[in-house]
Amino acid sequence: MGRQTLTPLSKNVSGWYNDVVLQSGLADYGPAKGTMVFRPYGFALWEKVQEVFNKAIKKKGVENAYFPLFIPYSLLEKEADHVEGFSPELALVTIGGGKKLQEKLAVRPTSETIIYSMWKKWYQSWRDFPVLMNQWANIVRWEKRTYLFLRTTEFLWQEGHTAHTTEKEAKEMSLWALEEYRKLYEELFAVPGIVGIKSARERFAGAMETYSVELMMPNGKALQGATSHELGQNFSKAFDFTYQDKDGKSAYPWQTSWGLSTRSLGGLILTHGDDKGLRFPPMIAPIQVVIVPIIGDGDSKVTEYVEKIQDVLLKQDVRVKIDERDCSPGVKFNEWELRGVPLRLEVGPKEIVEKTVTWISREDGERGIFNVEDISDQVKQQLSMIQKQMLKRAHKSLMANTTEVNNYDEFKKKMKNSRGFLRAFWCEDKKCEENIKNETKATTRVRLLNEKKETGKCVYCGKKSSYRWNFALAY
Amino acid sequence: MGRQTLTPLSKNVSGWYNDVVLQSGLADYGPAKGTMVFRPYGFALWEKVQEVFNKAIKKKGVENAYFPLFIPYSLLEKEADHVEGFSPELALVTIGGGKKLQEKLAVRPTSETIIYSMWKKWYQSWRDFPVLMNQWANIVRWEKRTYLFLRTTEFLWQEGHTAHTTEKEAKEMSLWALEEYRKLYEELFAVPGIVGIKSARERFAGAMETYSVELMMPNGKALQGATSHELGQNFSKAFDFTYQDKDGKSAYPWQTSWGLSTRSLGGLILTHGDDKGLRFPPMIAPIQVVIVPIIGDGDSKVTEYVEKIQDVLLKQDVRVKIDERDCSPGVKFNEWELRGVPLRLEVGPKEIVEKTVTWISREDGERGIFNVEDISDQVKQQLSMIQKQMLKRAHKSLMANTTEVNNYDEFKKKMKNSRGFLRAFWCEDKKCEENIKNETKATTRVRLLNEKKETGKCVYCGKKSSYRWNFALAY
Repeated sequence: MGRQTLTPLSKNVSGWYNDVVLQSGLADYGPAKGTMVFRPYGFALWEKVQEVFNKAIKKKGVENAYFPLFIPYSLLEKEADHVEGFSPELALVTIGGGKKLQEKLAVRPTSETIIYSMWKKWYQSWRDFPVLMNQWANIVRWEKRTYLFLRTTEFLWQEGHTAHTTEKEAKEMSLWALEEYRKLYEELFAVPGIVGIKSARERFAGAMETYSVELMMPNGKALQGATSHELGQNFSKAFDFTYQDKDGKSAYPWQTSWGLSTRSLGGLILTHGDDKGLRFPPMIAPIQVVIVPIIGDGDSKVTEYVEKIQDVLLKQDVRVKIDERDCSPGVKFNEWELRGVPLRLEVGPKEIVEKTVTWISREDGERGIFNVEDISDQVKQQLSMIQKQMLKRAHKSLMANTTEVNNYDEFKKKMKNSRGFLRAFWCEDKKCEENIKNETKATTRVRLLNEKKETGKCVYCGKKSSYRWNFALAY
Repeated sequence: MGRQTLTPLSKNVSGWYNDVVLQSGLADYGPAKGTMVFRPYGFALWEKVQEVFNKAIKKKGVENAYFPLFIPYSLLEKEADHVEGFSPELALVTIGGGKKLQEKLAVRPTSETIIYSMWKKWYQSWRDFPVLMNQWANIVRWEKRTYLFLRTTEFLWQEGHTAHTTEKEAKEMSLWALEEYRKLYEELFAVPGIVGIKSARERFAGAMETYSVELMMPNGKALQGATSHELGQNFSKAFDFTYQDKDGKSAYPWQTSWGLSTRSLGGLILTHGDDKGLRFPPMIAPIQVVIVPIIGDGDSKVTEYVEKIQDVLLKQDVRVKIDERDCSPGVKFNEWELRGVPLRLEVGPKEIVEKTVTWISREDGERGIFNVEDISDQVKQQLSMIQKQMLKRAHKSLMANTTEVNNYDEFKKKMKNSRGFLRAFWCEDKKCEENIKNETKATTRVRLLNEKKETGKCVYCGKKSSYRWNFALAY
């Protein structure tokens, strides 16, 4: 690791991305086309996401469950838009136990159909509602080109599913999930996102309304960070999922679904990287602190000194590692910079005499001295500072990449050059959206939740428009 | 829930098992043949297993990773015994993204082949060893008959995989995993297991040696609780997975793999159940304490009283729930007994006046009084006592179901009637093992790790034998 050349981010984002993911040991390509392997360093990121998000959903009363991987094809077909949206991406099992199957099985591309076919059986009284469930699962959607984390045939995600007796409650639930995603990106990933409503064209297949968190990547392209859907009664009607309300009448529940996938890790990597490699925010970093002894190995005094520091930090739940390998400090520095460890501590003879350590921040290269005496407070303070700095930098970059445009020439020029989010009036006519996409490749990302109603002219056709939308190239 | 009739365990173990799993809301059948749904109450058991086992493996330095679900068929074929063992059970994907695939993909039946094909690429120096990895994943092995938890086409498990530079170290690792499984069963599930070596016939396809934890179910049948394999160099040779040792010479690593699946939950349910339903040991119970107010609803004094108790217990990490539903206490008692909650607290007018609660243990129906003042200490003490009692009962039952037999007539008679573990001398000749299986359906479960070497006669052929083996019918 660390010996290969890293394509500079500033020169080639995609080249840098592939290099850094492979070289830092985050992930690799699997043997079957389109698949990827999450190596321990990469999977640790996902474990942290699971830990944080599980806390949030359990506090809300959402319970984890697990539904089958295989969905009979006929179940998928029950919601017409849904099967139309997903059928081109399916992996199908046609042979099982040595025999050709009578009905082919889809490897789940999402679980609405299988979950709601079970709920229909279990929940029949208003007393059973709301139903709040989540599962952590692997998902398969066929991909021709693999892009580690960002686009793979198999990926991991959580999918939340809920059912309510009122539309209002369902809407609130889907907005709650959206806000949790925004917070997770901001607080854990130090990645600011914008939240809003998708256009009809960009909606989830079968949904009434789709909300999403959209992130801006350093190459000016937008990444859909997570989505939350108001399903209305589309699925409950398709599945004939009814319950008896308080008056004894039969009613269809209102449903939501919402998901965050390992694709998010691609956004994390892209947002913070630099020419030296990864930069992980301390909150999610698998290793937060690396201690590098900078004098010859085998010196028991040094070993004792750094192990004591490690023990103190471990007790305070700091994720710390000592690098005592038999190679030069320079090689180690490069490697830990490549791997994005937020804080490096160096210990040499001077530090031992003075009872200090030298610290270097991965974020901006700043360095300083900590006293060993109160090392854990200082380390924790520094980590918290780095976390804030990273969010601040990312936020600045988001702002710099967001531009209001008021005519189509400007729009086209921007989309060719600096890209980013272009905020433009749109009349909400599908035709204008299609034409813009065909001519510039840009799609409507979202209309911000808190977007002000104004009077403007559609950037494409000039017709009266009420809102600016955020357009961008999709990652 | 709780309204249906429960088949008595004492009359019909299988009938009781199916009833209790469905009625208590642990699980259900999925729409595709052979699949099952883990409902929240059932999945919570698995989440606890994950929490406890993750702690154990991380302490040992094992890191979690995630490898792809789809394995190209040609990879599976690399180890001859392995593919022979698994090919009849495979689910095969033959269509992806609307097109027929050039090479069919197996949905993983286990991950040795895919993991080792990656390791071969990543680890090439003695410095990279030992390699200690684990994944939590879904697994597919085609089943004709579904038995919830115990036998399903898709199940969940953890699979640990390690590679070492010496055979000794690999052996120690696989025995370490075996001991962790034994401890998990005993300490978390209150299920005593016996640990030992499998016969060549019962070994994992591709292994040099298989160890297992075997459990005894109330119907006298044995359940394989978890297995740990010494793979020797079988896989490293088949995959040409080599590394350079300290002297610069090329060598094959020694490997192990070990797994525990959701099948274990079937063992938990069967071991502790009774005619009233489930009985969960407090350590793994999703709900440890249920509080049932036994006076009319809507009484704010009662609500305040029980909520205060709940708060105190929640702060001490006791998993507690108040049942305030609008139905009779009797209905609630039955339901929580069915669902196996270890401790029930009842609050009526008398308790409020005396500042107490009445407690009832699900294990043996014992009841008593706790003072509200130090309720959390008393509850925790009682839960810990119940945990011990449950292990003791299960251990007694294991002992009662273990018999030494010294001739084949006795063996046959026992296997027909009371069953259980029969400890008999066996010459270790495959023919005797086969004949015994054909004539009695009993298989060799294990030779205990600490089995004393003795001089005896094979229970089947009378030839000289050195060890007793534990025989039983397999679940």
